[in-house]
Amino acid sequence: MSTTKSDINFDDILDDIIYLLESNQLDFVRNIVADLHAADISDLMEHLNSENRSKLFNILPQDVASDVLPEVEDVLREDILEELDTSKIAKLVEEMESDDATDVINELPAEKASEVLDQVEDEYSEEIQELLHYPEDSAGGLMAKEYVAVNADCTVEQAIEELRRNHEEDEVEDIYTCYVIDDFDTLVGLVSLVNLVLAKPKALLRDIMDEEVFAIDSNVDQEEVAQIFEKYNLVSAPVVNSRHKLIGRITIDDVVDVINEETDEDLAKIAGIGEEEILEESVFKVARARLPWLIISFFGEIVSALIMDFYSMTITRMVTSALFIPVVMAMGGSTGQQSGIIVVRGLATGEISPRDLRRRLSREMRTALITGSVIAVLIFLIIALRWNDLRFAMVLATTLIIVIFNASVFGALIPFGLKKLNIDPALASGPFVATFNDVIGLLIYFTLLTTALQYGLI
Amino acid sequence: MSTTKSDINFDDILDDIIYLLESNQLDFVRNIVADLHAADISDLMEHLNSENRSKLFNILPQDVASDVLPEVEDVLREDILEELDTSKIAKLVEEMESDDATDVINELPAEKASEVLDQVEDEYSEEIQELLHYPEDSAGGLMAKEYVAVNADCTVEQAIEELRRNHEEDEVEDIYTCYVIDDFDTLVGLVSLVNLVLAKPKALLRDIMDEEVFAIDSNVDQEEVAQIFEKYNLVSAPVVNSRHKLIGRITIDDVVDVINEETDEDLAKIAGIGEEEILEESVFKVARARLPWLIISFFGEIVSALIMDFYSMTITRMVTSALFIPVVMAMGGSTGQQSGIIVVRGLATGEISPRDLRRRLSREMRTALITGSVIAVLIFLIIALRWNDLRFAMVLATTLIIVIFNASVFGALIPFGLKKLNIDPALASGPFVATFNDVIGLLIYFTLLTTALQYGLI
Repeated sequence: MSTTKSDINFDDILDDIIYLLESNQLDFVRNIVADLHAADISDLMEHLNSENRSKLFNILPQDVASDVLPEVEDVLREDILEELDTSKIAKLVEEMESDDATDVINELPAEKASEVLDQVEDEYSEEIQELLHYPEDSAGGLMAKEYVAVNADCTVEQAIEELRRNHEEDEVEDIYTCYVIDDFDTLVGLVSLVNLVLAKPKALLRDIMDEEVFAIDSNVDQEEVAQIFEKYNLVSAPVVNSRHKLIGRITIDDVVDVINEETDEDLAKIAGIGEEEILEESVFKVARARLPWLIISFFGEIVSALIMDFYSMTITRMVTSALFIPVVMAMGGSTGQQSGIIVVRGLATGEISPRDLRRRLSREMRTALITGSVIAVLIFLIIALRWNDLRFAMVLATTLIIVIFNASVFGALIPFGLKKLNIDPALASGPFVATFNDVIGLLIYFTLLTTALQYGLI
Repeated sequence: MSTTKSDINFDDILDDIIYLLESNQLDFVRNIVADLHAADISDLMEHLNSENRSKLFNILPQDVASDVLPEVEDVLREDILEELDTSKIAKLVEEMESDDATDVINELPAEKASEVLDQVEDEYSEEIQELLHYPEDSAGGLMAKEYVAVNADCTVEQAIEELRRNHEEDEVEDIYTCYVIDDFDTLVGLVSLVNLVLAKPKALLRDIMDEEVFAIDSNVDQEEVAQIFEKYNLVSAPVVNSRHKLIGRITIDDVVDVINEETDEDLAKIAGIGEEEILEESVFKVARARLPWLIISFFGEIVSALIMDFYSMTITRMVTSALFIPVVMAMGGSTGQQSGIIVVRGLATGEISPRDLRRRLSREMRTALITGSVIAVLIFLIIALRWNDLRFAMVLATTLIIVIFNASVFGALIPFGLKKLNIDPALASGPFVATFNDVIGLLIYFTLLTTALQYGLI
């Protein structure tokens, strides 16, 4: 019995496979791989270089290859697909579930995609073409056509027969529910598999079905689909069109992928990197995705430089002032991240809704007064003791309170604003807002300082 | 038929509920709430102030309250539990599934917990006490005792009878699998519910069971549990002890919670905030969680100030140098985040393994040379054109290449190092490493600058 990942001893297998692939002992590779789960093979492939990867993929039996392909990360799958001809892809696609098949077709160039579809059997090709109409990040883009639906007037016995037919034909294993429809394919209820097993064979589905169904409209965004699954602890959900006709089914494994994808996206925006960077092999592609963010930040800080240049007399008269530029920037930056990321995350999970703006801002402001005061006292003591300048200490302490207060308000406000404008709030945690906070912080610092110098206060 | 979240019009209901609670029209509240799903009620509670929240909770019928309580965020649940007496908690706990019941008991102070357990019926109390032994973040801490296990020598018919008994007794709805055990309770296989429905009634489980089971050891960390579920697209998994005896079951809804929890934790470390901040109401608690991170960053930048103080003659001789402190800091900081967060995320999802260190570092270094060169050219042009100082432009361009290269190496290296030391790599993306990069960056800048000045190069 195969058990947990740690039992498989992935590292040893990987080393063996690399050695065997490089020395072209492909029969040994076939033997090792025959005992592995498709997800493990896909894992191996992600740790191989591109040459070994295609060697390995090419020796997989067709039914295994069609299981492995949907598991591989998008970046690598595109590479693999590039090397395959259309008839091979068509054969693989025919063995996949319709949602995976659609994803593969979606990744092909238009011409190649239609060539592949021409070689897939007609009925299945039509299903895939239907699925291709939906945006990839909508409920329609997530759903598959493999589900069991039975008319409300059927008996439990008939439903089980339908289940058998479906199971044998599509080889769909992950069925947890039988959907109940009326004569017009409208979804009217569902019967869980447990209840189907335990019901009397002659009972009508109409009489035993659960009418409380979380049906999802095909246009709903995938992030909202994930929120619905999480909230109601769903394992699968029916998808309906605008006339409430049953058109597909979404399963939890695809939702888990969405959750991870959304987190990847948010983290990419926080870090200022490309969304599919983890397994990207071309450093030019990586650099091209990262540079825009660096350049935004770069020019923002050039603005900081210009502001300080304007106040350069202040720095000349008081060189000590330059020493605390990093403190001012770091306190603004860290506070902005603290109040910003929590709002970004809350908006993403639904735990914070746009209506919470005022409550959230008030909480951030009160928090900022506490943290700002503590930091102000610290800087006052340090300047007073180390640099022995009480008045400068006062100016810097005041600066930090204002900077922390400001950064914390902007940090929380900007994600709400972006959400309202239908822009991903996660952008607010990226270099853009951090740089903005730096500019504002330094402006406050040098304005206060210059004013204090002008009035002879320091 | 209730459908998606958007149909419920949450905002309107919330406004009504607040009005009715404040004006003590509790019968109306009861009517509204009667139509809602436990998860929706829990959502409402999260948007109420604490007074209204306990008012609402107290009018919920017992069976609804026991469904709502596990759905509420931890921070708020503790508040609610504080106000309830032990007999009420005991009644609620008895209606929960064993994993939720254990979570509730875990949140109570030791004395109150044992009082509650004394009032729970013996058999169930023993189950909960068994579950309490496992660390909360292990597979044992996630599992529940509600599952169906049948001896391998039983027939399909007998298994269905056992399913019926179990279903009626525990009212467990989410059963997808029948586990198969031998005479010593050792897990030997499973039969999916679909296959159970479609098998012949007189068939032996032994003959139709699937022997390939992803059994999870009770000691496995919850992060690894999530990785196993994600990788193998599981909906539920059996948990076994060290002698492979079946002791519990983990379901996907709890795993989704783990995934979100782990993301929350990572984001909290990146942002430098407390882990359960989103719904925390006390600004003192929020400030107390955030201050340590701010203070680390603060003292780091004080070190920057001391370094620059040491080089203050350089700033005096060349005030322009101070203007580019923000550029140096921002380029180091942004690059460090870019290379760091991607490694943190990859290590968390398993897409990057510790063995990828060299490949990852090499990729980061090559990327840094590209991005560093672009930024170096930009700063050279800007200084040359705006400040008209070619030699200073050379020094600053060199500084930025080194700083970007360094930050990108440290950014990727430190998470790997923490992982090796069994410390959460996410810490590497927090203020700690960012500050470290600032200090190193400024040290490089002023050392280069001072050397150049000493040798009369600028």
